[in-house]
Amino acid sequence: MSDWTEISGGITAPRGYKAWGMAAGLKPSGAPDLALILSDVDAIAAGVFTTSQVRAACVDYCRQQLQAKASAKAILCNAGQANAATGEQGNIDAIETAQALAEALNIAPESVLLASTGVIGQRIKMDALKAAIPQLVASASESGGEQAARAIITTDLVPKSIALETLFGDRPVRIGGISKGSGMIHPNMATMLAFVTCDAVVSPPLWQEMLSRAADRSFNQITVDGDTSTNDTLIALANGQSRTPAITGKGPEADRLEAMLTAVCEHLAKAIARDGEGATCLIEVQVSGAADEADARQVAKTIVGSSLVKSAIFGRDPNWGRIAAAAGRAGVKFKQEDLRIQLGDFLLMEKGQPLPFDRAAASQYLKQAAAGEYLKSDTVLIQVNLGNGSGVGKAWGCDLSYDYVKINAEYTT
Amino acid sequence: MSDWTEISGGITAPRGYKAWGMAAGLKPSGAPDLALILSDVDAIAAGVFTTSQVRAACVDYCRQQLQAKASAKAILCNAGQANAATGEQGNIDAIETAQALAEALNIAPESVLLASTGVIGQRIKMDALKAAIPQLVASASESGGEQAARAIITTDLVPKSIALETLFGDRPVRIGGISKGSGMIHPNMATMLAFVTCDAVVSPPLWQEMLSRAADRSFNQITVDGDTSTNDTLIALANGQSRTPAITGKGPEADRLEAMLTAVCEHLAKAIARDGEGATCLIEVQVSGAADEADARQVAKTIVGSSLVKSAIFGRDPNWGRIAAAAGRAGVKFKQEDLRIQLGDFLLMEKGQPLPFDRAAASQYLKQAAAGEYLKSDTVLIQVNLGNGSGVGKAWGCDLSYDYVKINAEYTT
Repeated sequence: MSDWTEISGGITAPRGYKAWGMAAGLKPSGAPDLALILSDVDAIAAGVFTTSQVRAACVDYCRQQLQAKASAKAILCNAGQANAATGEQGNIDAIETAQALAEALNIAPESVLLASTGVIGQRIKMDALKAAIPQLVASASESGGEQAARAIITTDLVPKSIALETLFGDRPVRIGGISKGSGMIHPNMATMLAFVTCDAVVSPPLWQEMLSRAADRSFNQITVDGDTSTNDTLIALANGQSRTPAITGKGPEADRLEAMLTAVCEHLAKAIARDGEGATCLIEVQVSGAADEADARQVAKTIVGSSLVKSAIFGRDPNWGRIAAAAGRAGVKFKQEDLRIQLGDFLLMEKGQPLPFDRAAASQYLKQAAAGEYLKSDTVLIQVNLGNGSGVGKAWGCDLSYDYVKINAEYTT
Repeated sequence: MSDWTEISGGITAPRGYKAWGMAAGLKPSGAPDLALILSDVDAIAAGVFTTSQVRAACVDYCRQQLQAKASAKAILCNAGQANAATGEQGNIDAIETAQALAEALNIAPESVLLASTGVIGQRIKMDALKAAIPQLVASASESGGEQAARAIITTDLVPKSIALETLFGDRPVRIGGISKGSGMIHPNMATMLAFVTCDAVVSPPLWQEMLSRAADRSFNQITVDGDTSTNDTLIALANGQSRTPAITGKGPEADRLEAMLTAVCEHLAKAIARDGEGATCLIEVQVSGAADEADARQVAKTIVGSSLVKSAIFGRDPNWGRIAAAAGRAGVKFKQEDLRIQLGDFLLMEKGQPLPFDRAAASQYLKQAAAGEYLKSDTVLIQVNLGNGSGVGKAWGCDLSYDYVKINAEYTT
C-alpha cells in the first residue's frame, strides 16, 4: 500500500535538522520543558493553529510571521506556561523570546517560530528561559529529536515521535514529527502541539495546502474532549536538503509527499488520542458511503466523540444502539434504512436493523483490544456505512474509563 | 417581572385536561411506565422532535400526524422500550398503539399522539400495553398530572412537573408541563420528553411558532452530554378551555402567553439538567454583548457543555481559564480583549485579562451551591460579556462529578 518505511530519529531524521530538549526550570516538576528545532538552512514553513477566539500570544505571533514570510530556521517551544490570556505583556514576552533565540543563533528574529503549552493566564518565566537558551543552542544535534519530543510534553504518559522515508528516484525523502497532548481533560492544560520536519523541495503554497489537508484528516479528526485549546499549533518545515526535484504543483511526487505527510500527521494524532487519561484502547471509526469526505469525517468524529460510545467500549459492551444514535445526530443526512454498523468482524446492524450476533465474542473482541500493544494491536475498529455515496473518512479517540474520570473528578485546587 | 404565579397540578392544572400514569409491565422493574394525557375537546397541537437521522417510530408518526392536522385529543407515552431501530415493525406497532387507544376512547386514531422512551432496538411490549389501556383510560382524572409525570421517567431521580397561571382580563389562563430525561449519560436511554398543556385560545401556526421559539430558549439550551436521542419529543396542546379571547397574531396577549410558555419550558429544561447523574448543582450561563441572540446562546451552550468547566465546578475550582477557553472555541466571533467573566459575585476577568480575586471565597460560593435546595438555591451562575452587541442568551447544565463517572464507567453488560 504505502511506499515508505518507518525509520528512527523523529524530527532529526530528515537531512539538515538539529534539535534538543532540556529542563530550563519552567515546570515546577523540574522535568524537561524547553525544546528547540533547528534547520541548517531557511526552511519553507507552514502552520495550522487554533481557531479559538481566545488565543495564546505565540499563536498570534506565528500567524503574523508566516503571513509575512513562509519560512523559518528555528522553532522554540516551552512547556509550563501557556502565555495565553496574558494581554499585551504576553505579546511582548513572545517577541523578546524570539529575539533572545535569534541572537544566540545569529539569525533574524523573523526566522524564529514559537509555541507554548502550560497553564493559561501565566506568563513564561522569562529569566529562566533566557538563561537556558545558550545551553539549548549549544546542545542541539542531529540526534536530538527524542530529547525535543520529551521536552514538549506536559501530562502525556509517553513522548510521541515518528519518522518516515521514501525514495524519489534513488534519493531518500524523509518526514519526521513529534507531538504532545493527551487528548482528554487536564486540570489546566489540554494543548495539542505538533512539529513536522521534512527535507523535500516543495513550494511554500503547496506545502501549506498539503499541511492543511493533512491536518483535516488527522489532528482535526481526534477528539480532545471537545475542548479546543488556546495554544493548539501544528508547524511543518521543509528545508529542501533531500536535493530531490522541486515539487511545485500537482503530480505523482506531490501526491506521494502529501500521502507521507498525512501518514506522519495521522500517526501523531492517533498517539495523542491513545494517550487520553485512563484510556485502555484506541478507537478508530471508519465511515464510508457518505455523500462526500466532509460528511464521512463528520459522522466518524461524532461517533468517536460520543461519551455514550466511549463508555460502552470501556464497559466492553458491543452497544450498536449508541453508535447508531451518534451517527444519526451528526448533522449529516442519510437514510436510516441504509445504515450498516460493524464492530471488528461483528456485523451488528444492516439496512437500519439490528442483527443477531455473538455478544460474548464481540465483548471479548473489545477486551482483547484493551490488552493489546500500544498503537499496534490496541485498536477497536468501528466501521459504519451510510449508503451509496463515495465519501470516506476516519476519526480516532479513546474509551472513557473509570481511571479517567477518577483523576478528573477528584481534582480540586 | 413575570405576571404569572406558580400553581399546583402540573399538566392537569389547565382547564379541560385529564391524565394518569400506571405500571403496565413494560419496565422490568415494575415501576410506572405508561402515561396518558387527555383533552376534553380537540386541542391545537404543536411539536418539536429530534433532528437525528435515526429516529423512533413514534417520532415519525407524530410528525406525519401533525403535518396532516395540527390538533389532538390524547397523548400516550410508554417507558421501557424506545421503539427506535425497530424497522417497519416499529411503525406497525406505533399505528396499532394509536388505534388501540383511539378505540378505548372512542375517538379517531388521528387524534392520538405517541411518545416512547427506553431501550433502543426493542419493540414495545404490545400485549402488555394493550391490556393496560382500559384501566389507564378509566383512571384518567383532573388530578392525575403527577401520576403521568412519574410514569414517563426512566432513570430520572425525580419526576418533573410545573404549572403557571396568569390572568387575561379576569379569566385565568394556565400552562402545565411535565418532562423526563436526566440530561447525562445512561446505559441505554437518554431520551428527553416533555408534554405541555395549555387552556388558552390560540391559532395553530402561532402556537407552533411559540413552541419552537420556547424550545430554542430552553430544551435546546441544556446539554444532554451531547448525545441527541432517537426519541426526543416535545408536544404542546392548547385546548381553548380558558374561554379567553382568541390569540391569532402579534400583540401583548401573544407576548404574555409566549413568555409563560417559555417559562414552563425553561423550568422543565432546567429540571432535566439538574437531574444529571451524580450532579451536585445546576449551572446557569448567561451571555450578553453578543452580536445576536443565536451567538449568545451558542457561547452559553458551549461553556455549560465543556467537560473542563463542568469538572472544575465539581472541584469547586473558580477556573476562569476554562470558561474563557470554552467561550473562545464556540464558533462565535468576538474580540478577546472585550471578554468579561463573572462567577456569582466574583469578577474573574475583564477586558480579556485575569483579575485578582478572593479564590477561597469564590470556591466557597461553589460549595454553597452544591449544598443548596433543589432548583432554588443550588445554581452556580456564570455571566459572560462578549462586547457591545445586544444579543443575550442562557444555557443550563450540571457539574461533572465523581459519582457521575463512577456510575457510567462501571457499567458493563
